[in-house]
Amino acid sequence: MKFAIVGTGVIGSGWITRILAHGHDVVATDLAEGAYGTMMKQVEQNWPYAEQLGLAPGASIDRLTFTPDLKEAVMDADVIQENVPEVESIKNTVLREIDAYAPPDALIGSSTSGIMPSELQQNLKHPERFVVAHPFHPVYILPLVEIVPGAATTEENVKKAETIYESIGMDVLHVRKEVEGHIADRLMEALWREALHIVNDGIATTEEVDKAFTHGAGLRYAQHGPFMTFHLAGGEGGMRHMLKQFGPALKKPWTKLEAPELTQNLYDNVVSGCESSSNAYTMSELDQNRNEFLVKVKQLAEEYWPAETESMRKNKKVAQS
Amino acid sequence: MKFAIVGTGVIGSGWITRILAHGHDVVATDLAEGAYGTMMKQVEQNWPYAEQLGLAPGASIDRLTFTPDLKEAVMDADVIQENVPEVESIKNTVLREIDAYAPPDALIGSSTSGIMPSELQQNLKHPERFVVAHPFHPVYILPLVEIVPGAATTEENVKKAETIYESIGMDVLHVRKEVEGHIADRLMEALWREALHIVNDGIATTEEVDKAFTHGAGLRYAQHGPFMTFHLAGGEGGMRHMLKQFGPALKKPWTKLEAPELTQNLYDNVVSGCESSSNAYTMSELDQNRNEFLVKVKQLAEEYWPAETESMRKNKKVAQS
Repeated sequence: MKFAIVGTGVIGSGWITRILAHGHDVVATDLAEGAYGTMMKQVEQNWPYAEQLGLAPGASIDRLTFTPDLKEAVMDADVIQENVPEVESIKNTVLREIDAYAPPDALIGSSTSGIMPSELQQNLKHPERFVVAHPFHPVYILPLVEIVPGAATTEENVKKAETIYESIGMDVLHVRKEVEGHIADRLMEALWREALHIVNDGIATTEEVDKAFTHGAGLRYAQHGPFMTFHLAGGEGGMRHMLKQFGPALKKPWTKLEAPELTQNLYDNVVSGCESSSNAYTMSELDQNRNEFLVKVKQLAEEYWPAETESMRKNKKVAQS
Repeated sequence: MKFAIVGTGVIGSGWITRILAHGHDVVATDLAEGAYGTMMKQVEQNWPYAEQLGLAPGASIDRLTFTPDLKEAVMDADVIQENVPEVESIKNTVLREIDAYAPPDALIGSSTSGIMPSELQQNLKHPERFVVAHPFHPVYILPLVEIVPGAATTEENVKKAETIYESIGMDVLHVRKEVEGHIADRLMEALWREALHIVNDGIATTEEVDKAFTHGAGLRYAQHGPFMTFHLAGGEGGMRHMLKQFGPALKKPWTKLEAPELTQNLYDNVVSGCESSSNAYTMSELDQNRNEFLVKVKQLAEEYWPAETESMRKNKKVAQS
């Protein structure tokens, strides 16, 4: 399988590293001045971590080639991954070029963080082979990829996309409904916007916000998402207890974001979702599993948390005076 | 030092475990029927993880006593930690009792997730020794505690609180400005509310939302908070580049939460905050440190992620049909 990477910045170089590490050929293209040098530097820096995660037989940086000519890059490709700047007009122009020059049955994936696939595919001649394939930085380590088909994407191409991205070691999350920001970025963006509000309102510094996350909830989120985290914080009663305990807080100004009404339907979906995710394990078994993980991840994180800076210590003193 | 724990549910039992593990005596009290049995069961379940993290000399579950009589529990205590349900009227009643029966110089900490300390201390006779001391579940593993003084809390008691909570292995984050939800819960609540909107709007199941977080961004958040995560996603340009790239997205409907205006002042605070947090390390050094961590945390998380359930597989099939 031959991959073409269009746009070789941080995300593009990340894709290149992941794909090379899985033993494939990659042709990369980017019009920016100095793109080749920057790309090579990044891929070389990424490589040791790909090695630690395990290389496929035959995997080599030597299987990467570069051309500034988009047509040349995509004309023989089986899969093209687009990673140009997050501006609709730029993405649309580049995707139309890819569509025109690539074989008509080549799969085209876009790394867009938030633009909907139906918008991006509408001016393509072969829109049926286009999907959003949204990865997470660093792409060569984090396994998640959100696959979002547009209205014109065929079922066959969704399946093909799933097979291709799984073959390069990724965990595919099908996003069944198109929405701005897909799923993961909506969660991250909510966090990010609230964090910006906190700094903007003078409540805390960026460093304090970061610490408030990493030394507490952040450790849990490497294993469980927001739902299972709350399910496991509810003791024997799980999510049922949590919604009773913290449901009323949804009406309080605990964030700038207003919550949805906690209807019976939403309640049922959330509770049954958590019970299904529990895979028939008891709360106590889930608890023990979570604890084993947290003890290990805490010990690991302690070695890697950034040291407390002078500004953090100064803020502490100010707080006490 | 003698600790009293008022309210012995999931959070109370977590505090008990942490404090016992650090070699102190604990007197616990709770009026609920069967509270003693539930508390003992939880503390015994928690204990092996406290052992794995390391016990202080003399630490023992035998140093825990229980009484249903609040007065008896707090009358000789040096530190009282309140963990009753998150309802202001209940908290106010219990805190007034604690205040009346405890020695006047004993420190009183409240585990409240979101109520402001000035509200909780206003009816106390000795409000100066009251702080919010907000921990994270499981309290015996996660190190973060947010210390929030109210308007009537003295500087001496803030320092005392810092010393006490650090002596039981916690990382203290001073919250310098009172605000509903303090800092960490505002971030978590933003995430939680957006997650509820996603389920409520039929975009994804709870299981899909959780996976969208744990297999991507969630792995990063055990090390870096939202600011440093974006700083490191910006390549050599760091946060400056990220704000250029994703600043315009703040205007887009990528979440239900509206973002603050990205003013020059906010821009400067965010950029200089990230540069300060970098502690003079270069972007490339930060990158390598982050990668080393992520490779390890990913390998660890893979052993502990919940298995894909039948419902998840079914949804995949639906997505393809």
